[in-house]
Amino acid sequence: MKILRYLIDGQARHGVLHGSDVFDLDGDPFGAATLGPRVGTLRDVSLLPPCTPTKIIAVGLNYADPSQEGLPPLPNEPILSFKPPSSVVGPGSPIRWPAVSTRVDFEGEVAVVIGKITRNVTSSEAKGYVLGVTCANDVTARDLQRREGQWARAKGFDTFCPLGPCIDTSVDPTHCRLVTRVNREVRQSTTTSLLHFSPFDLVSYASRIMTLVPGDVILTGTPPGSAPLKIGDVVEVEIEDVGVLWNPVEADDCPKK
Amino acid sequence: MKILRYLIDGQARHGVLHGSDVFDLDGDPFGAATLGPRVGTLRDVSLLPPCTPTKIIAVGLNYADPSQEGLPPLPNEPILSFKPPSSVVGPGSPIRWPAVSTRVDFEGEVAVVIGKITRNVTSSEAKGYVLGVTCANDVTARDLQRREGQWARAKGFDTFCPLGPCIDTSVDPTHCRLVTRVNREVRQSTTTSLLHFSPFDLVSYASRIMTLVPGDVILTGTPPGSAPLKIGDVVEVEIEDVGVLWNPVEADDCPKK
Repeated sequence: MKILRYLIDGQARHGVLHGSDVFDLDGDPFGAATLGPRVGTLRDVSLLPPCTPTKIIAVGLNYADPSQEGLPPLPNEPILSFKPPSSVVGPGSPIRWPAVSTRVDFEGEVAVVIGKITRNVTSSEAKGYVLGVTCANDVTARDLQRREGQWARAKGFDTFCPLGPCIDTSVDPTHCRLVTRVNREVRQSTTTSLLHFSPFDLVSYASRIMTLVPGDVILTGTPPGSAPLKIGDVVEVEIEDVGVLWNPVEADDCPKK
Repeated sequence: MKILRYLIDGQARHGVLHGSDVFDLDGDPFGAATLGPRVGTLRDVSLLPPCTPTKIIAVGLNYADPSQEGLPPLPNEPILSFKPPSSVVGPGSPIRWPAVSTRVDFEGEVAVVIGKITRNVTSSEAKGYVLGVTCANDVTARDLQRREGQWARAKGFDTFCPLGPCIDTSVDPTHCRLVTRVNREVRQSTTTSLLHFSPFDLVSYASRIMTLVPGDVILTGTPPGSAPLKIGDVVEVEIEDVGVLWNPVEADDCPKK
């Protein structure tokens, strides 16, 4: 099942995607919900981020990159950082370039969405706590990230966490094919079977630190190929059989103070 | 006004503290609310954290410490990191010591609570966006913090962000007297007039990165004296004229996996 959220008459609703048709979903997609009438096609609705996480956990250095000799070795434990809920945007929404940065990079990633309250689970138990996967872009102001010890600012700007288009509950998170394109040119291509820490390892690790709740999201790490964007670019993050998350890059409208 | 939250018949309610009497508060304390009947004294109610932040921003190295020669100099820009909403507990709730850490430190701090949607404000405008202040303990697994580049784990465990007892809307955040005691012995004592970046500077700085929303919290930094805890300790963080946040330290009940 492909679960999405959309805007209709100023209200956020959950829906289900069948082919290119959107059906309304009444109730809680993390609990009991019933399928409603057809709303239209994917083109007729205004998509929102497919969930509203209380926590967005980004994972660093989780794919090997044979082309980069200078990179640090893969870590013994996952490297976690948080992106704030205010950074989340949905498909089609602009990534706004903050005036304070001169280098903003895309990072296409597979995100796992938590389905139940999750605390202190093992990797093998974790599967039962994941609702599904969605596409994510862990947008990062690389100049700030390199200069600052903590990544809260570099990864925390408004619009720096595009998510969507839907949460796919039937794909296997450990075998997702991921492709990132900028202006239709392929820039990243991998499968989550190459991850150093698997999606379920990451859920387990995080759950031994903090209680995860339905809608929380773990961005599982970006494969080789992350690179700088420019104003006017369009980034697409696609997971095979799940969908395409696309976002244009625009200048921020806030003055630099 | 002193705004608090409490539990009654299994429901979370807002209230107002007058002296030691708690009155019910009907409505939204960040918007329109009316004072209700007296509920009892502070001892009669079960206190909850006074707000439910979507973001908790912790600030590093924000007080000078003349006794510590080896410390890095105060930074040119605030050092921000996030604590997850799942780390928040209220007055009286235990701080649970994670089995994975051998050193857990208290960090008594003055927290500012955001009252309105705040984006790209100046320091002088920031005052109008702050609802009030509350006491905070930025509990940190110091061994993990020293070992790991990112502080998400060291500062992110469940129960590592005690907040309370109330949000005081009448004190001046730039002149709060802060005292931390462990087992009734004073361990930290300062005033926010000694902060390197003032509470309003911090609100301004954060608001130029991300949209702050009502109930979001900025922990303004800890003064000299932060030190290790042990199981059985009781930590008190007091802001003069605001109140005392007290929490016992207990072993975590989760097995180490």
